[in-house]
Amino acid sequence: MGNTIEEKAYLAKQASVHLATVSTDLKNKALKAMAEELLNSKQQILDANQKDLEEAAKQKAAGTLSASLFDRLKLSDAKFNDMVCGVSDVAKLEDPVGKTLSTVVLDEGLTLYQISCPIGVIGVIFEARPDVVAQVMSLCLKSGNATIFKGGSEAKNSNRILFDTLIRALSKVPEIPTEAFHLAESREDVAKMLDMDNYIDLLIPRGSNDFVKYIQDNTRIPVLGHSSGICHAYVDEDADLVLAQKVCLDSKIQYPAACNAIETLLIHEKIADKFLPPMAEIYAQNGVELRLDDAAEKVMKKAGSRVSFTKASDKDWDSEYNDLILSIKIVSSADNAIHHINRHGSHHTDVILSQNQKTIGKFTGLVDSGNVMVNASSRFSDGFRYGKGAEVGISTNKIHSRGPVGMEGLMIYKYILSGSGQVVANYTGTGAKKYIHRRTDEKYCRLQ
Amino acid sequence: MGNTIEEKAYLAKQASVHLATVSTDLKNKALKAMAEELLNSKQQILDANQKDLEEAAKQKAAGTLSASLFDRLKLSDAKFNDMVCGVSDVAKLEDPVGKTLSTVVLDEGLTLYQISCPIGVIGVIFEARPDVVAQVMSLCLKSGNATIFKGGSEAKNSNRILFDTLIRALSKVPEIPTEAFHLAESREDVAKMLDMDNYIDLLIPRGSNDFVKYIQDNTRIPVLGHSSGICHAYVDEDADLVLAQKVCLDSKIQYPAACNAIETLLIHEKIADKFLPPMAEIYAQNGVELRLDDAAEKVMKKAGSRVSFTKASDKDWDSEYNDLILSIKIVSSADNAIHHINRHGSHHTDVILSQNQKTIGKFTGLVDSGNVMVNASSRFSDGFRYGKGAEVGISTNKIHSRGPVGMEGLMIYKYILSGSGQVVANYTGTGAKKYIHRRTDEKYCRLQ
Repeated sequence: MGNTIEEKAYLAKQASVHLATVSTDLKNKALKAMAEELLNSKQQILDANQKDLEEAAKQKAAGTLSASLFDRLKLSDAKFNDMVCGVSDVAKLEDPVGKTLSTVVLDEGLTLYQISCPIGVIGVIFEARPDVVAQVMSLCLKSGNATIFKGGSEAKNSNRILFDTLIRALSKVPEIPTEAFHLAESREDVAKMLDMDNYIDLLIPRGSNDFVKYIQDNTRIPVLGHSSGICHAYVDEDADLVLAQKVCLDSKIQYPAACNAIETLLIHEKIADKFLPPMAEIYAQNGVELRLDDAAEKVMKKAGSRVSFTKASDKDWDSEYNDLILSIKIVSSADNAIHHINRHGSHHTDVILSQNQKTIGKFTGLVDSGNVMVNASSRFSDGFRYGKGAEVGISTNKIHSRGPVGMEGLMIYKYILSGSGQVVANYTGTGAKKYIHRRTDEKYCRLQ
Repeated sequence: MGNTIEEKAYLAKQASVHLATVSTDLKNKALKAMAEELLNSKQQILDANQKDLEEAAKQKAAGTLSASLFDRLKLSDAKFNDMVCGVSDVAKLEDPVGKTLSTVVLDEGLTLYQISCPIGVIGVIFEARPDVVAQVMSLCLKSGNATIFKGGSEAKNSNRILFDTLIRALSKVPEIPTEAFHLAESREDVAKMLDMDNYIDLLIPRGSNDFVKYIQDNTRIPVLGHSSGICHAYVDEDADLVLAQKVCLDSKIQYPAACNAIETLLIHEKIADKFLPPMAEIYAQNGVELRLDDAAEKVMKKAGSRVSFTKASDKDWDSEYNDLILSIKIVSSADNAIHHINRHGSHHTDVILSQNQKTIGKFTGLVDSGNVMVNASSRFSDGFRYGKGAEVGISTNKIHSRGPVGMEGLMIYKYILSGSGQVVANYTGTGAKKYIHRRTDEKYCRLQ
């Protein structure tokens, strides 16, 4: 408890190899204990949260804490129950550890197994939302990863009691090394964590875009996340316009603050006259502020539309509004749309509306984004909707994991070569034995 | 050609999305053209290499260039032919692009495909060995990745003519965007490349440990590689000692300069009297210099061994000799061996010699290395021996790819959600539609 962050990280690393080998049953037993202990301590946890809220209310009044941060800090009854259910649900997820990913017989009696295993130590740095502690600890436990949490100071009482409650639950299953989990509390610890590439294998930041960007820019540890979500919908000349209208509306208004809501609508010039004026009317009815390029403005004037809008500036194409604002641009081809998306987008989620399979093929092939939606809302880009059971984050990285990431993003693999005295000398030079390299479905079985 | 590195990187990024969609047939056609063009230009290439060698010979004589660097610089006839065969072989490898990795039906008519795709732009920074240009360009082409090469100045003539020859071959297949490949030539370009995380998605350094470490320590771009190979063999109390002798010898002497040769031998105290003296004798006969801890020294004296050795110092446990030198330590348990390996090793390749399945299970579970060998030589830890067809590098990273990495290390994936107008609004709130999340084997088919 009184340990420095360096000591905590060292202990987490040591414990991580042991946590990696804990059986599924024991991990599930611990998850159940975690859910129970949270319920047993509900009142104390809500009291601690209340303390944080009182302090935060003062800061909010003084203008040093935003209303949205205040909301995220609050553990309502519903949020508390969701949190407990979330922990229980992780027990139901398949254990991702120890799966045989591939098996190759190199030679008779010499078999290579590729086995999934945890990454090691995950650093989680988050703002406000104290329920992150329970959510991430349950996912890391199930996937066998040690974890160091660093929450925002605004939630210090909530984080501390949640962490202590969960550790108390873990300690009821003696085979689980509780030293695998640590809570860092001082502000200086963040900078130290960003430097600990010898101990921390992966960082997961949870918070505002600026917060994630700061983490990404100040560490050599791999970061799982995304710092912006500039998503697009492109309405092709061969789109079903009724269908397109539905999807374009949902992609913008279903939850405009989300990273997977669209910020820019691209419309093919051939269907702009037919599509844009009624679409603009619908957006306006739903409170969406529109920012149009010159060509779109002409289309609206030509149609005699009375929907109000402003002119889009160059800055708009690179803006994430996270709000009921949408920029609209007319393009002369699918290629132009693709070029615009690859240049201005954040490679997160982009949508094509088209009934032309060739155009769809071009778009899905050339748009360099983690998620490409064909005739479906951008808002589907989400771990739960994708059926992952739980979402660790949405990644715009080009290595390891991309798009909505579930527990698979917390996994790596090791190779285990099982032999009976084979040496490389026999496979080289004159009279060398030959490798077979035969793939099989055989699973690796590790005695414990 | 006269472009700055920034322009080259920009062009590579632009071209990368197009290269990502080139068909297998066209890529194989280009690979054949590359092999042919290399053969056609053999004499000019060897002449250019001769020029580099003459310059290097002067530096070698002046003591500013090592003998091993000189050797790696030389394109012998055999190396040239291997290089050409290597390019042809890549044509035979399966195309890793566009594979359906998973398919989930979210709801009837709304299907999520996870499709393999290239990472984007790979930066390859290498010392001496000019054949890297042909090897890496063929792997990157086949996997659809754009590439920026930066070779050492000692090989500038060889690299330039190899690069120009390969680009000339590529340009015979007009569908391949040659702008995807660039050669950087000035020393300042390296520092600039390390800063280009907006354009370069992955760095692959090829050279000495110090060189790789320098790259790893000076960039935020993910690096695929390893900067050291401190590998161990552990001879357990339940080992078959005859088998262990063979494996321990091969692991050290088969090619001691390799990263997967062992540097430290750990021996269980219960079998040390029986195993160590004859093993030491065999090592001595094979020219291996031995460095023993106190307990091992006692075992040798007790046995009256006449094999010469020196005392191991603390530094030895953290040393990669890359030479016929071996440190030896007696341990009191498998747990102690595992602890030593996790603390002092480089998480590259470690061996257990044992016939006890429970001890083997413990070792493979707890040793935190990319490759764990059971009763087989550490030297098998290699892309070709693992059957990968080609090796991009050996990684000690904990994310993306680990151990020997083939073309799969150059791949990521994107999600494509194919719908017919579905919106998220229908799946939320009262009367919400339910997700099905049914896994199927259906492949994604992209029209081109």
